[in-house]
Amino acid sequence: MKLVRYGAAGQERPGLIDAEGRLRDLSAHVPDIAGTALLPESLERLNALDVTGLPLVDGTPRTGACVGAVGKLVCVGLNYSDHAAESGLPVPTEPVLFMKATSSIVGPYDDVEIPRGSTKTDWEVELGIVIGKPAKYVSEADALSHVAGYCVVNDVSEREFQIERGGQWDKGKGCDTFGPLGPWLVTSDEVKDPQDLHMWLEVDGKRFQDGSTRTMIFGVKHLVSYISRFMSLQPGDIISTGTPPGVGLGQKPPLYLKAGQTMRLGIDGLGEQRQTTVQG
Amino acid sequence: MKLVRYGAAGQERPGLIDAEGRLRDLSAHVPDIAGTALLPESLERLNALDVTGLPLVDGTPRTGACVGAVGKLVCVGLNYSDHAAESGLPVPTEPVLFMKATSSIVGPYDDVEIPRGSTKTDWEVELGIVIGKPAKYVSEADALSHVAGYCVVNDVSEREFQIERGGQWDKGKGCDTFGPLGPWLVTSDEVKDPQDLHMWLEVDGKRFQDGSTRTMIFGVKHLVSYISRFMSLQPGDIISTGTPPGVGLGQKPPLYLKAGQTMRLGIDGLGEQRQTTVQG
Repeated sequence: MKLVRYGAAGQERPGLIDAEGRLRDLSAHVPDIAGTALLPESLERLNALDVTGLPLVDGTPRTGACVGAVGKLVCVGLNYSDHAAESGLPVPTEPVLFMKATSSIVGPYDDVEIPRGSTKTDWEVELGIVIGKPAKYVSEADALSHVAGYCVVNDVSEREFQIERGGQWDKGKGCDTFGPLGPWLVTSDEVKDPQDLHMWLEVDGKRFQDGSTRTMIFGVKHLVSYISRFMSLQPGDIISTGTPPGVGLGQKPPLYLKAGQTMRLGIDGLGEQRQTTVQG
Repeated sequence: MKLVRYGAAGQERPGLIDAEGRLRDLSAHVPDIAGTALLPESLERLNALDVTGLPLVDGTPRTGACVGAVGKLVCVGLNYSDHAAESGLPVPTEPVLFMKATSSIVGPYDDVEIPRGSTKTDWEVELGIVIGKPAKYVSEADALSHVAGYCVVNDVSEREFQIERGGQWDKGKGCDTFGPLGPWLVTSDEVKDPQDLHMWLEVDGKRFQDGSTRTMIFGVKHLVSYISRFMSLQPGDIISTGTPPGVGLGQKPPLYLKAGQTMRLGIDGLGEQRQTTVQG
């Protein structure tokens, strides 16, 4: 299934995209695409519905973040060796973890704010793992059974705030609008191999990132298992798994976003995002 | 007011502690001590209630974290110069920010788990600021009007996970049970000067921390204003403002928690916490 949330910010309703690409409403079946609605038994119930019987949604409502009420947005740093190199940092020997404030989460087509005082706002296309079942001290062998599905994440980052303002990265990762999620939560059954997905990002039509989840250092199974040793994961939590090379920081010279630009980014099978930058 | 949440974990009800120290139920007036219930107009409404008319709660129910549905728990590192010194780190020139996973939040008397594989679980008594009104790019002059109140936080920390396992501190800060909050959210009107509060922490009856918010490097006003430049703050978000000297890491030699120990900690006017450590 391709699960979506549509409607005005803060008032999103649950829906799904049918085989013909049409938006259908799921409000009669789940309160939101969030929390316990992502448990395996809930997804099975949704999967068993007669899609043609679900109400078609008129018009072209806004697309919200594909998961609501995200409890935490855990991010993995430097998880592609080429990106570590372009960042001038060593390839990590175990996953580097940081957190994005959940208040940064927006829809996939919402504007991205350049924060006041920012001169180094940057892009990062990433594969997001959406947790579907509570996970604490889970093994790699069992890890995928805790995953509801996947989505595109733009891990928007302010490099000065992240690196030059005290050293802990969270300061440059959680600004409002820095976490576009979606357009869809694609359930695990429709993602044949999360370690073989092409991913890309363009700014104003120029392709900067063009990679594949094949070159992740730590894969999905390992990350879910690893993170569950340091914090428990709940349904609706999201792990953003790191970015391939091609971010602004890695250009020679570095190149950052200004207001009025357009980012487009996507991952095979998970859809595309598009954001316009605006001054915050 | 001293606002509290009582009852089984995940099913807490709102209450307050009256002038005689008795627990009274607030369920008829707010759904939870959380989110919009912390807005200034909501607190004013609660403050105007006839306390003697509120139902007394029978028995001795569990005390939950004093704020529910916390959106984010933003922490300030090295905010007491003596603690920076005992950590072997320079005094910061601007606030160091990191995040605790909100899944770490527990009640003030709940057990604290020593995570599997941990040998360096440590304590940190801290003043928590509870946000009551949305804050984004707010001035220092205006900052306190965004504060609903204050609470005690034990910023439990695993030093190996924090410092030696990839460098970003979040990995050692967000383990389950690492965020005891409470017992009370004491509203701002009852805290005369948040920069003049005695704070202390004991392990098995031995006092390790004995400080005052007077020696914070960056005070409450500055922190609310500063953080609001990097992420917006919402009602129910909490800022934990750093710890004075005396943590386990700072002992010579360092001293860490084992299962079966008892922490007691408190801040003047904000009440006391008490936790027993258990193996996770």
